[in-house]
Amino acid sequence: MTPESSSQQALLDALAARLGSAHVLTAASDMAGFLSEARALYSGSALAVVRPRDTAEVSFVVEQCAAAGVPIVPQGGNTGLVGGGVPYGGVVLSLTRLDRIRAVDPVNATMTVEAGCILKTVQDAADAADCLFPLSLAAEGSCRIGGNLATNAGGVSVLRYGNARELTLGVEVVLADGRVWNGLSALRKDNTGYDLKDLFVGSEGTLGIITAAVLKLFPKPKARATAFVGCASPQAALDLFQRLRSGVGDMLTAFEYMPQFALDIVLKHVSGAVRPLAGEHGSYALIELTSPQADADLQGAFETVLGQAIEDGIVEDATIAASEAQRHALWQLREELSDVQRLEGGSIKHDVAVPVSRVADFIEEATRACEAAMPEVRVCAFGHFGDGNIHFNLSQPVGMDKATFLGEWERFNRIVHDIVAQMGGSISAEHGIGLIKRDELLRYKDPVAIDLMRTLKRALDPHNILNPGKVVSVMEGAPSALPLG
Amino acid sequence: MTPESSSQQALLDALAARLGSAHVLTAASDMAGFLSEARALYSGSALAVVRPRDTAEVSFVVEQCAAAGVPIVPQGGNTGLVGGGVPYGGVVLSLTRLDRIRAVDPVNATMTVEAGCILKTVQDAADAADCLFPLSLAAEGSCRIGGNLATNAGGVSVLRYGNARELTLGVEVVLADGRVWNGLSALRKDNTGYDLKDLFVGSEGTLGIITAAVLKLFPKPKARATAFVGCASPQAALDLFQRLRSGVGDMLTAFEYMPQFALDIVLKHVSGAVRPLAGEHGSYALIELTSPQADADLQGAFETVLGQAIEDGIVEDATIAASEAQRHALWQLREELSDVQRLEGGSIKHDVAVPVSRVADFIEEATRACEAAMPEVRVCAFGHFGDGNIHFNLSQPVGMDKATFLGEWERFNRIVHDIVAQMGGSISAEHGIGLIKRDELLRYKDPVAIDLMRTLKRALDPHNILNPGKVVSVMEGAPSALPLG
Repeated sequence: MTPESSSQQALLDALAARLGSAHVLTAASDMAGFLSEARALYSGSALAVVRPRDTAEVSFVVEQCAAAGVPIVPQGGNTGLVGGGVPYGGVVLSLTRLDRIRAVDPVNATMTVEAGCILKTVQDAADAADCLFPLSLAAEGSCRIGGNLATNAGGVSVLRYGNARELTLGVEVVLADGRVWNGLSALRKDNTGYDLKDLFVGSEGTLGIITAAVLKLFPKPKARATAFVGCASPQAALDLFQRLRSGVGDMLTAFEYMPQFALDIVLKHVSGAVRPLAGEHGSYALIELTSPQADADLQGAFETVLGQAIEDGIVEDATIAASEAQRHALWQLREELSDVQRLEGGSIKHDVAVPVSRVADFIEEATRACEAAMPEVRVCAFGHFGDGNIHFNLSQPVGMDKATFLGEWERFNRIVHDIVAQMGGSISAEHGIGLIKRDELLRYKDPVAIDLMRTLKRALDPHNILNPGKVVSVMEGAPSALPLG
Repeated sequence: MTPESSSQQALLDALAARLGSAHVLTAASDMAGFLSEARALYSGSALAVVRPRDTAEVSFVVEQCAAAGVPIVPQGGNTGLVGGGVPYGGVVLSLTRLDRIRAVDPVNATMTVEAGCILKTVQDAADAADCLFPLSLAAEGSCRIGGNLATNAGGVSVLRYGNARELTLGVEVVLADGRVWNGLSALRKDNTGYDLKDLFVGSEGTLGIITAAVLKLFPKPKARATAFVGCASPQAALDLFQRLRSGVGDMLTAFEYMPQFALDIVLKHVSGAVRPLAGEHGSYALIELTSPQADADLQGAFETVLGQAIEDGIVEDATIAASEAQRHALWQLREELSDVQRLEGGSIKHDVAVPVSRVADFIEEATRACEAAMPEVRVCAFGHFGDGNIHFNLSQPVGMDKATFLGEWERFNRIVHDIVAQMGGSISAEHGIGLIKRDELLRYKDPVAIDLMRTLKRALDPHNILNPGKVVSVMEGAPSALPLG
C-alpha cells in the first residue's frame, strides 16, 4: 500500500465510522450512477461516494477530506448538463439524505428545506400550505433543491418569479474547512453586512456546500389563462410581448417561443399532438396569464391585447385554451420539444441570453449566420423569450452523418457565441459553466471578472478542495474541459 | 514638511493635474458639507474632497490613492444615517459629477445610470419612457443612486418590488487597485460564474466603488387605490395583511403601519392633517393597491377584502381615498412621521426586521419590554410592516431631560435588539451598518459570517484602502465606532 492509498483508506474508514459503512460506497456498481451525467458527455471516477444524513455529517466529511487533502464533488439529483457534478478523483458528497422540510411559514411566505429535497416535493409542500413555490423545470421530479440553488436554476417561471437566486432568502453552508455558516435568514430586509448568500448560490459547489435554504413562497394562482399565438416573425412576437407586459404586468407568467420547425417536429413525433392554429406562421408564442384572484378576467385581458394586436398586424392568429385539457395540450407542444430534437439526429446546443430588446434580432441574425455556414442546417431556436433566454439549437441536415455534424460543434459555438457577445449577452443563461463552458468562458468574460472569481475561489477555498476545476480553474494542472469527450 | 505630508501633497497635485484643481477641494469651508452627516452623529476630517467626472477619473483617483496608501471614502448624496460616508482621514471621493443617464431601454425594461444621478432624476427618466423605477424613499430628492446601491436601500416599495439589490441587474465598479470591472449586464439570466454584482451592492463602499448600474424598470401603474384602516392590535393588522396578500397578490404595493401614538403626534404637529377615521384604534395600516391595467377594479378588490375583514372582526374601521387629494392626505400622515418625532423630544431609534409572521409579536413584546424598563416611555413603532421592517423608535417621557433619556440609548438597544435576535431578525433592516452598528453587529451576527466578511474584505481590498473601518473592521487600530459621539 502506498502512503497515499493508506491515508485515503484511513479517510474512508473515518467516514464509515461516522456515517455508517452503508453510506460510504466504494464498489464500482454502487458508484456508477454518481460518476456521469444523464447526457453522458462526461464520465469520471471517485474514491468513494459518501451520503451524510445531516449538516453535522456534511461538516464532518468536509473537515476530514480537507485534512486529508482529498477533493469533494457535491452532488444533488445529478441532473446537470454541464459536467459540474462529475468527479475526477476525490469523494462525491451526495446530499440526497438531507431531505427534510424543516419548516413552512405561510404568513412569512417562506419555507426552510434541506438541500436533498426533490424539487417536486418542495413544490408539493408549498401547495399543501396553499402557497406557490414557483421554480419549475423539466427535471423537477428528480433534481434536488440544493443543486437548483448551487446552479441558480431557471426554468419556465423566471419571467414572473425570477431565478433560483431570487427565490432564496437564506442558506446554510458548509465551508471548505468544514465550518457551518448558518445563514438561514427568513427576512425580506437585512442590511447587516455583505451579501454572503449570493456568493454560494450559483457557485456550483466550488465555494461551499449548501445544506439547507429558506425559500420564498407566493400566493397561489387561482385563475389562469393560456394562449397559443402565431406571428410573422420574432420581431412581431417581441412587439406582442411588450404590449402584454405593459398591459397586464405581472399577470404575465410565461412567454415561451418556438419557430415553425420546432412545432413541426413536435407534431411529427408526439402521438396525439394537435396543430393548435390553422396555417403556418414564422413564430409561435405560448403565453400564460395568472392571478391570485379567482374571479380575475384573464380571458378578457387576453382578448383585449390579442384583439388589438391582430388588428395592428402583429399577431396572425391566436387561440385561447377553453379547458384544462386544452391548456395541457398547448403546454405539451412546448414541453416535448427537448425530447423530440433527439429524434431528428444530432443537435448542437446553445443556452444563451441577450437583453430582451435584442432577442428578435438575435434569433434572426444567428439563424442567418448558421444557415450561411451550413445551408441545410435546421435551426430550432426556442425557449424563454420573455427572459431573453433562447435555447439556440441546431438540428443536423437531413441525411448528414451525425458524427460529421457534431464535429462542427466548436465552429457553430463560435458563430453563435460571437453574436451573443456582440449583443452584451451570456453564453450560459441557465445551465451554468461546470466543465463544458469553463474554457469558453475565458474567451467571453471580462478578464477582470475572471480574476475576481479566482480571487474569491482562493479566499474561500484556499486548498482547492471544493469541486476543483469546475467553473473557473485556479490551479495549474486542472483537468481540461472536455467538450463532448 | 514631513515625508508623509510631502507625499500627500504629491498625491493631491497629481489628482489636481488630472481632475482640475477646481475638483480637488482642500479648504475647510469647501469640505465642510462632506465631513459630517445631516443627523450629525459623526463628524470627520479629510485631506481633500475630490470630484472625478467619469469612471476613468475614479479609476485614476483610486490607483493614485492606493499607491500612496491613502484611504478613500466614497460618497454620493451624503444622506446616510449610520456614519458610512463620514471620513476619518484620507480622501472623500464624491461621485456627484458622474450624473449621466447612459441609456433607457423600455423593451428590455432597463436603464443604465451613473452613480451620481439623483434618485428622483432616475425616477423621472423612467417615467418619461412610460416605465416605473420603483425605488422610493424620503431622501429621494437628494440621495444618489450609487449610494442607494452601496447601501442596498429599502423604502416604501420593497413589499412589491424589492430592495435596491433586487432592482439592479449589473454594476460597473472601480476596484481597490483602480481596475474597472465592467459588470453592466442588462440580462435577466446569466449563469456564467459567481454573482459578483451582489458583493458590491450593499457593501457600503468597502469592497469597491460603484460608478454605474443597470437598473430594472417595471410597467407603470395605471390604476391605484389607497385605504387607511384601523385595527384593534398588531396581530389584527397582520391577519389583514395576510388576507390581502393571498387575495390580491402583487397588486398589494404598500402596507405601512403606525400605532395610535404616531397618528396622534402627526395630527398634533402637522397643520391641516385630518383624522382619517372616527374613534381610536390600537393599530393603523396605510394600504395601497396598484395595477398596470387602467380599468382594474381596485376599489372593488378593497371592498371585498375589507368588507369581509370587518365582518370577521379583524378590521374596526376603514376608509378608501375617493380622490387624489384624499390619497395624498393619507400618505402625508405616514410621511410626516419621521419629522414630527423630533418635536416630541429625544428619540432612541431602531431600524429592525423580523420574519413577517413575527412582526405583530415583535411590536407587542418589544413595547412591553421597553415600557417595563421605563413606564413613561412613548413607543413609536411604525413602518414597513409588510416587509417585517419596523422603525421601533422610543420618544422620551414627557418632561424628562432629553440628554438623560438619550443616555439610555445602549440599554434600550440591548432590550430591543435581544428580542429581534431571538426572533431571527436583523438589527439593521435598511439603513446599513456604517460605524453606528459595526460593533453592535459583532454581538448579534454569526461569528462565521463575520469571519467570511473579513475574508472577503481582505481578498478584495488587501491594503484596506476602501472606506476602512466601516461595516467590519479588519485592522487593529481601526477607529472605534462612536455611538452618538
